This record gives sequence, structure tokens and C-alpha cells, in this order.
Amino acid sequence: MISEFYKEMTGRPSVIRHFFAYSMERAKVVGPENVYNFSLGNPSVPAPDHFTETMIELLQNENPVALHGYSPTLGIDSTREAIAASLNRRFGMNYEAKHIFPTTGAAGAIAHAIRCVAGEGDEVLTFAPYFPEYIPYITGCGAELKVVPADITSFQINFEAFEEMMNEKVAAVIINSPNNPSGIVYTTETIDRLASILNQKQKEYGHEIFLLSDEPYREIIFANADSPYISAHYDNSICCYSFSKSLSIPGERIGYVAVNPKAKNADDIVPMCGQISRFTGHNCPPSIIQLAVEKVLDETSDVSIYETNKNILYKELTAIGYKCVEPNGTFYMFPQSLIPDANEFCWRAAKELDLIIVPGDSFECPGHFRISYCVTTEMVERSIPVFRRLYELYN
Amino acid sequence: MISEFYKEMTGRPSVIRHFFAYSMERAKVVGPENVYNFSLGNPSVPAPDHFTETMIELLQNENPVALHGYSPTLGIDSTREAIAASLNRRFGMNYEAKHIFPTTGAAGAIAHAIRCVAGEGDEVLTFAPYFPEYIPYITGCGAELKVVPADITSFQINFEAFEEMMNEKVAAVIINSPNNPSGIVYTTETIDRLASILNQKQKEYGHEIFLLSDEPYREIIFANADSPYISAHYDNSICCYSFSKSLSIPGERIGYVAVNPKAKNADDIVPMCGQISRFTGHNCPPSIIQLAVEKVLDETSDVSIYETNKNILYKELTAIGYKCVEPNGTFYMFPQSLIPDANEFCWRAAKELDLIIVPGDSFECPGHFRISYCVTTEMVERSIPVFRRLYELYN
Repeated sequence: MISEFYKEMTGRPSVIRHFFAYSMERAKVVGPENVYNFSLGNPSVPAPDHFTETMIELLQNENPVALHGYSPTLGIDSTREAIAASLNRRFGMNYEAKHIFPTTGAAGAIAHAIRCVAGEGDEVLTFAPYFPEYIPYITGCGAELKVVPADITSFQINFEAFEEMMNEKVAAVIINSPNNPSGIVYTTETIDRLASILNQKQKEYGHEIFLLSDEPYREIIFANADSPYISAHYDNSICCYSFSKSLSIPGERIGYVAVNPKAKNADDIVPMCGQISRFTGHNCPPSIIQLAVEKVLDETSDVSIYETNKNILYKELTAIGYKCVEPNGTFYMFPQSLIPDANEFCWRAAKELDLIIVPGDSFECPGHFRISYCVTTEMVERSIPVFRRLYELYN
Repeated sequence: MISEFYKEMTGRPSVIRHFFAYSMERAKVVGPENVYNFSLGNPSVPAPDHFTETMIELLQNENPVALHGYSPTLGIDSTREAIAASLNRRFGMNYEAKHIFPTTGAAGAIAHAIRCVAGEGDEVLTFAPYFPEYIPYITGCGAELKVVPADITSFQINFEAFEEMMNEKVAAVIINSPNNPSGIVYTTETIDRLASILNQKQKEYGHEIFLLSDEPYREIIFANADSPYISAHYDNSICCYSFSKSLSIPGERIGYVAVNPKAKNADDIVPMCGQISRFTGHNCPPSIIQLAVEKVLDETSDVSIYETNKNILYKELTAIGYKCVEPNGTFYMFPQSLIPDANEFCWRAAKELDLIIVPGDSFECPGHFRISYCVTTEMVERSIPVFRRLYELYN
């Protein structure tokens, strides 16, 4: 009588986890320093001291009954107000507390937001390469995910394919910029063109099309990147944010939904999120974590190492002969695989060189591989000869 | 295009929240000391010092990258092992880490566990009075909740009604003992009789019937209560626990699923929970909270005040003339309303006396009202004349 649906899924662990598990096994055999593990997107720099100090202050100075008490269903008021004020200050928006719903990271944010705006019979479009966990979020709300093929020359949007796939059933579009796995930030031109098409299609179809922007890497932007605040460019938009990468606290599960005040039904969506969380048993993020991030909203960890690592990897790998679009954010890059089968390519790198990279197939973008360079610069430097040996296996 | 299903729900806030909101309004008008607020189940005693100290130690001494890093999908290994060991030590069970899935409180635990063992077309039975949030958890998995009427003479199980309602479609039964709102603990005799019926029905129907025991009040037991560890009495059982009440940390959202090692598919259920969490975007509870509770598993807050309060309220209210089954756990009691319409009764108490109690209708047990006595003993003592005036309104 147990659910065959979920039981069957347990037999299919993610490819990325598979590579990661292999790297852990190898680390036991050859020593962790001899495994070049670029498989996971776990921040490698510490949380800001101010976050740690704020947590300790809360624990030392607050009344524990109040501090650890239930959060209101829609989140702690002061936290919601502070998030709205920070976004308004930084991006010229007009959020109020009622537009903010604290969530357990971007995963919680997307899972809630999508249930607000899509359901049975709807389509949700996203763009390859994309984060594969979108599939369960969207399946979970009863809608169907359709994936627009990548523009592999720039990893901006393939608008031709997008316009072909647009149809009346599309209730929402999800974008992820800065992008995992490409490391590319959508330009103002891209966002404005996307907004223009969506506005036109809304008129044509006579219904809203919501734009969910998945923005956990928003604060990890490299020099001179054009990085527009997406919700400023399209009214029916919902920002799905996580502090996981900006504050290096992915395990603490904290992020938010920010509903564009100009969106249709803007004032309904957060209360709807509150109802949705009753079905999932999710409830609010932990009180103490809400209160702690409230104090460090405009800060980040020292994320400069990611740009340093990108600079080394991009320069050296392209010098070796790898083809890659240069990232301008995140801690990922997404070069072309040296053979069409990126899965075979990545396994060979793992088995022959202890170089752990993951195939683009996981992101519905075959022929590429992802390097997660949220690692030490020392490891990045040591890995260059290994990437060279990998290249020489095929040339 | 927003979801009408969830939007419509936002118009129906819970009755309990309605009473609570009224109490907050009145507190502004007459002062909080003049509102006798017995509406909410928020622990009123602080978390153990050891919990606070452990949190501070983790923040001061651990490497923040590791401390705040992603939890493994199924929870932190050391936490899972410690929970299994604690349950084995205390209740003579044989859990292993693989049977433990950390969750965001009992809400998360039930929402995950029910999706493992019930789905479309199934029925799930529970017993009045019961926690109304079971409805969205069960609706969310596609099954239908059926409520067995209360045995209002003892608030043990109404077995006659239960046996009548049992049928082949029943996939799971949920019990909550110690019970919210009655304060009653199911006896060993009750649990054994329930187990015996379930075992017999499993044979008759040829399929498993899972028993989910919702146990957030397990550690709040009064003198001489017979309080069996439920999973020790029935093999196909899943314990859904929360630390919210035992450690007074409801806002920190931490609990677990513990799958009986003797259950059918015992080793599959936790990996299935991991898959379920991908759909809800729930993921694991925060890393730091998992690590902190790991160190205080066998401790509780000083919960003795709840028994003190119960003793005063039970003695005084029954002396006044209220009829009530004496609680032997939790921080609730559930007397009979003085008129059949408990809703009208509770609103009159609120409006005429600033006495905030909530109607049993919310728990599908009309004609009763709930007193949440997780408040100061001083307030309990001051409230007795108010309960007397309420009684005198009807006598």
C-alpha cells in the first residue's frame, strides 16, 4: 500500500549526486586533495561574521519563548518589512511587507509561487540549460514543464524557439538568471525582449502569464556585467530568492517570494502561499533564521573568490582549447564537451583523472559539462594540468 | 490565471486564529493583562539552557561553511543516528538511522508520511477531536479524511464507530496522543485494542493499514498517566514527532518521521520522504537546528507548569460546575460548553468577559471548548473568577 509513484522515484538518484558520491568514494581511496571535485554548488566561503554575531546576540539577549515562538503564518512582520525595504532601496521597487513571503530557500519559493499561478492543464515554460528540480515543483502543481532549447552561442534566450512554443496554455515562465549551469546573466536587452513578448501574448490570449524569476545567484555578479533586476521589467512577476549563495547558508533554508506590487492579484498571492504551505506541511522558515537574515539583508559573504576562480579557469581552459561562453556571474561555467556524449565524457574524466565535472544532459543541454568552481583557488590552479590531460585524451 | 482553489481558501481563516486576532485587538484596548487568552498552543516556558548553549557553541566553534552547508537530502547522519539511539534507549525500539527522516516539525512529518502510504481513492481515518490541519495534509496526497466521532465520556477511542467505518479503502489511520484538544493520553489498553483491530483488518483486506502517530505532546505527561510508546504496539507504524512543545521551540520547525523497523517496506519509506520533499520544495530542516537538537534529545523544557495549571483549572472549574474529562498530558483541556452551540458560547465569553477560549467545532467535536493553559499560573489563578462569571451567565 505504499506509494509506488514515490517508491519508483527513489531508484533514480540524480546524476549530479551520483558523480558527487563517486568523488567521496575516491577521496577515501586517493585522499581528498587528489580528487578535483567540481560537482556541487555548495558555497565555499564563510557566512558574513555579522550573520554569526546576530545569531549569537539573538540567542544571548532575546527572551527564548518569544525568539523560538511560532512565526506568523505569512512570516515575521519585521523580516518581511525589512526585505521589502531592502529591495525597494536597491532596485527602485515599491514592495510592501504584504508582498513578501519568507520561504525555505528558492526551492520553497518556486514550489509555492508556481502553485499560485499554474495548475492542471497549464504549461510552464523554462529555458535550457535549467535546474532539473523545476520538474517536481511543476509536476507537483499539476502543470506540465516545457523546455525551450538553449541558445548555445550566448546562453541568452533562444527567442525563435520560445515564440514557437508559446501558446494559450502557458500560464507561467520560469527563468534563472544568473544561470545555473551556464554562469550567464540575462542582459537588460534579453529581459526587455522577453517582457515585450509576454505582454503581447497576454493581450493575445486574454490572460496573465506570470514570470517567475529564480534568483539565488543575484548577488554573485562579475565585473561589468549588465544585471537588471528582473521584476522591474515586467509587471506580472514573482521573484524567488534564496540567501543560500549570497550569505553562504544553504543548509539554513531561507529565502523568499517577492510579488511585484504591479502584478494582477498582487495582494492575494502571499496569502495564497500561506494556504499552500498548509498542504505541504512546510510552514514558515525557522524564526531565528528569519530574524538573523533580517539584520544582514544588504550584505554578502566575500564572494570575490568566485570571480578569481572564473578568471583562471576561463583563461586557462580556453587557452588549452576548450570552447566556453564566458560566465558573468554565479560559480559555474559550462564548456562544450569534447565529444557529443557529455555523460561518457564526464565519467571518463572521473574514472581516469579523478576530475569530477557533471554532464549538461542533467540541465537538458547535452554536449556540455558544468564546472562548479565554488572551491579553493589553490585547487583550481592544481586542476589546470588535469583539464589539459583530459583535453589531450581527445586531441 | 491565479489558482482559484488556493485563493478561495484565503477567505477562510481558521476559527482559532480569528479568536486569537480578537484577543490581540482587545489587548490593545484594555491592556494584555486584562485579556484571559487561552486560545493558542504556544509553549510558555523557555527552551532548555542546554539548547541555547549548544546553538551558541556551534556558531562560535564550528567552521561556518560546514555548519551552514547543505544537509544531506535525508537529514544529517549524526542527527538521525542520535534520534534512533535515543528512541531505542527510551522505548526499547530497534530504529536505525535509515528509519529517521528529520522534518520541519510534526506538520512536515505527517505531510510526508501520509504521502508515502496513501493516495488517490484511499481513505484515511482519524478520531475526533482532532487537529484540523490534517485535512490539507490528506487532501494534498489525494486521499480522503474520514473522522470517527469522539467518545466524549473518556476521549479514548470510540471503537464501535471506528469498526463501523473501517473498510477496504482505508490505507492509514492517524492518531494524536497525548491529544490536542482533549489533553487525554491513549492508554495501553486503547492502543492494544486499536492494534488488534488493525491487524485483523489487514488480514481481512489483504493490504497494510499504516498507523501514523502524531506525537508532539509525547513528553508532556502528568503524574501516573499510562502513556505507551505507540509504535511498540503495532508494526506498520510511523511516529511523527515534533520538538516544538518538548523543547519550546515551535518557531524553529524541527521534528522527525520515525518508521517502525518492523513495518512493511520499512527501508523504503525514508528515501520516499526524500523524494516527496522535492515536490513540495521543503527539503530538510535547517542544518544548525538539526545539529542543536541532536545534543538535547533526552531533555525537555521545565514543563511542570502545565501540570500545575491543569491541576488548578480542573479542580476549580469542576468545582464551579463545568463538566470535563481530566487531562493527563499536553497543555489543553476540553470541557463541555454550557450551551450546545460552542461557537456562540466562546464568542460570548470573548466579547463579554475578555476570556478567549475556542470552540470544539474546530476539532469536529461540537459542544466543547478548548482551554490552552500554556500560560502563566498567575493568569490561570486570576481567570478562575472569570470562568465563574461565565458559568453564572448560564446558571
